[in-house]
Amino acid sequence: MDGGVVDAREIAEGVLAGERRAVARAISMVESGSPDLPELSTLIYPSTGRAHIIGLTGAPGAGKSTLTQHLIQEARGRGLTVGVLAIDPTSPFTGGALLGDRLRMQSHATDPGVFIRSMATRGHLGGLALAAPEAIRVLDASGRDLVMVETVGVGQVEVDVAKAADTTLVVVNPGWGDSIQVAKAGILEIADIFVVNKADRDGADRAVRDLETMVGMTSEEGWRVPVIATSAVRQEGVDSLFDDIERHRTYLQAGGELAARRRDRLMAEVEEMVSQSLRGMARSVMEGSPELAADLQERRIDPYAAAASIVDRVQGT
Amino acid sequence: MDGGVVDAREIAEGVLAGERRAVARAISMVESGSPDLPELSTLIYPSTGRAHIIGLTGAPGAGKSTLTQHLIQEARGRGLTVGVLAIDPTSPFTGGALLGDRLRMQSHATDPGVFIRSMATRGHLGGLALAAPEAIRVLDASGRDLVMVETVGVGQVEVDVAKAADTTLVVVNPGWGDSIQVAKAGILEIADIFVVNKADRDGADRAVRDLETMVGMTSEEGWRVPVIATSAVRQEGVDSLFDDIERHRTYLQAGGELAARRRDRLMAEVEEMVSQSLRGMARSVMEGSPELAADLQERRIDPYAAAASIVDRVQGT
Repeated sequence: MDGGVVDAREIAEGVLAGERRAVARAISMVESGSPDLPELSTLIYPSTGRAHIIGLTGAPGAGKSTLTQHLIQEARGRGLTVGVLAIDPTSPFTGGALLGDRLRMQSHATDPGVFIRSMATRGHLGGLALAAPEAIRVLDASGRDLVMVETVGVGQVEVDVAKAADTTLVVVNPGWGDSIQVAKAGILEIADIFVVNKADRDGADRAVRDLETMVGMTSEEGWRVPVIATSAVRQEGVDSLFDDIERHRTYLQAGGELAARRRDRLMAEVEEMVSQSLRGMARSVMEGSPELAADLQERRIDPYAAAASIVDRVQGT
Repeated sequence: MDGGVVDAREIAEGVLAGERRAVARAISMVESGSPDLPELSTLIYPSTGRAHIIGLTGAPGAGKSTLTQHLIQEARGRGLTVGVLAIDPTSPFTGGALLGDRLRMQSHATDPGVFIRSMATRGHLGGLALAAPEAIRVLDASGRDLVMVETVGVGQVEVDVAKAADTTLVVVNPGWGDSIQVAKAGILEIADIFVVNKADRDGADRAVRDLETMVGMTSEEGWRVPVIATSAVRQEGVDSLFDDIERHRTYLQAGGELAARRRDRLMAEVEEMVSQSLRGMARSVMEGSPELAADLQERRIDPYAAAASIVDRVQGT
């Protein structure tokens, strides 16, 4: 994948020094599931945990790329460095890297304070759930103040990515923001901030009101999810949005929730890693037991008993 | 869940004798993940493998329930007994058992040759992937000639259920059957037979032609996926559809593919069982290691190293 010998130590040093090329190579290692990842992880992990991680999700066409661009601009104006990870659903119809390319072509391409990278999901959910947090840590370790993670679509992938963020923005459009839709899509729970984007269009006020009502009904004590209207056309709302992101971070830090969220995330990630690893072992045991399929098929053993015997053998390896 | 002592042996005997009440209780055990399932499985498993398993999938509103009803009628006319498992996506909006209830209210309710049961997925994918094949085996062991599995929607759930079937029918409607849609939904691969239902509507011929063209482009040697037009209004097509189901079964048997499919399915199911079981062990190890979260958070250990140590401990338990 990397076309030569990869020196995890060299790349890790480059990442820690904030070198763009090293950061790009490290994320490629994450993307391809390089065997040197554990070493890289050990080397960069102590330098992570400083960046604030912002997740952006919403339906295709909601204007997330443009919004991301404006948020980058706002962040730079406030003196913050930014890393962007654009998670692209890999499909034969959309191709793998459209989103990242679109972002890269924008005006930030030559700004050393901005690093933009797309990452294909290769259609592997487990893979993304593990790849996203590791890629975020690379950007974090490289010294970025903010890491933005942008995803396309609404579904399990988005929920996975939202789990990797400190502050999750759910971007909707006027007319789409109907309460039932949002509740159905299961994204009410993942939103820390709702953004009604393209707010210059008809129905924006209604969408904001609907979402505010819904948020009011479901909010418990603590953070009340704000609903912010933004418009690229009118150049409105991004500063308020950024203020709310900072307010959310302050809220998370003050109540100890930031640490709690991050701890839960790490534990979930480790559980997923363990699970994938054990599954691989189970597969090896099964592949090394050609008699198993025949026994199942001839009904000499039932699936539960077969599973129990494989669990025993995984434990014995 | 079962409101009393469950005697797996008694229930298994009832299932094998084809008693409706025992079958219903056994499927409830599957649905609730009863601890007595392994015992039930061991007792009924030798009596499985006789029924032909038909999966029906397609978008909501495609008319699957009505089609199922007509297929039941056709099967009964041909002297075959039928078990139907209606997989309901559990959501606060649709409720858990609408589909099964709708089917049960139909004319077959008093026919002893027909058993209809809905099963909620409880939003747990892994759960469904394991619950569906086990519930199918219960119906199979009870002596049904045909087991039909009906699902709502198109997505991972449907793919899981299609994996549990010998013959998968994908039901589309005129106007929906546009090639791109079908290809995008990832259901071209899972269809053994395409059904253009509500074929009395405009665009049915076009839908049939489109699907036939697509099938022609992707079919390899062996089974060529037929496209059958059915209409409940005109009472047309169900007999041809049933002929094609029987033709598919004969094809699968003749070429040894039925055995191969069933073997692959069993192995995938066992792998999933093993994986879930090992994941449970990993979770226990993690819950029994309160220092782990702190070590991760204080960055004394990185996620990869933490995962490796948990894998070791799962193997040592």
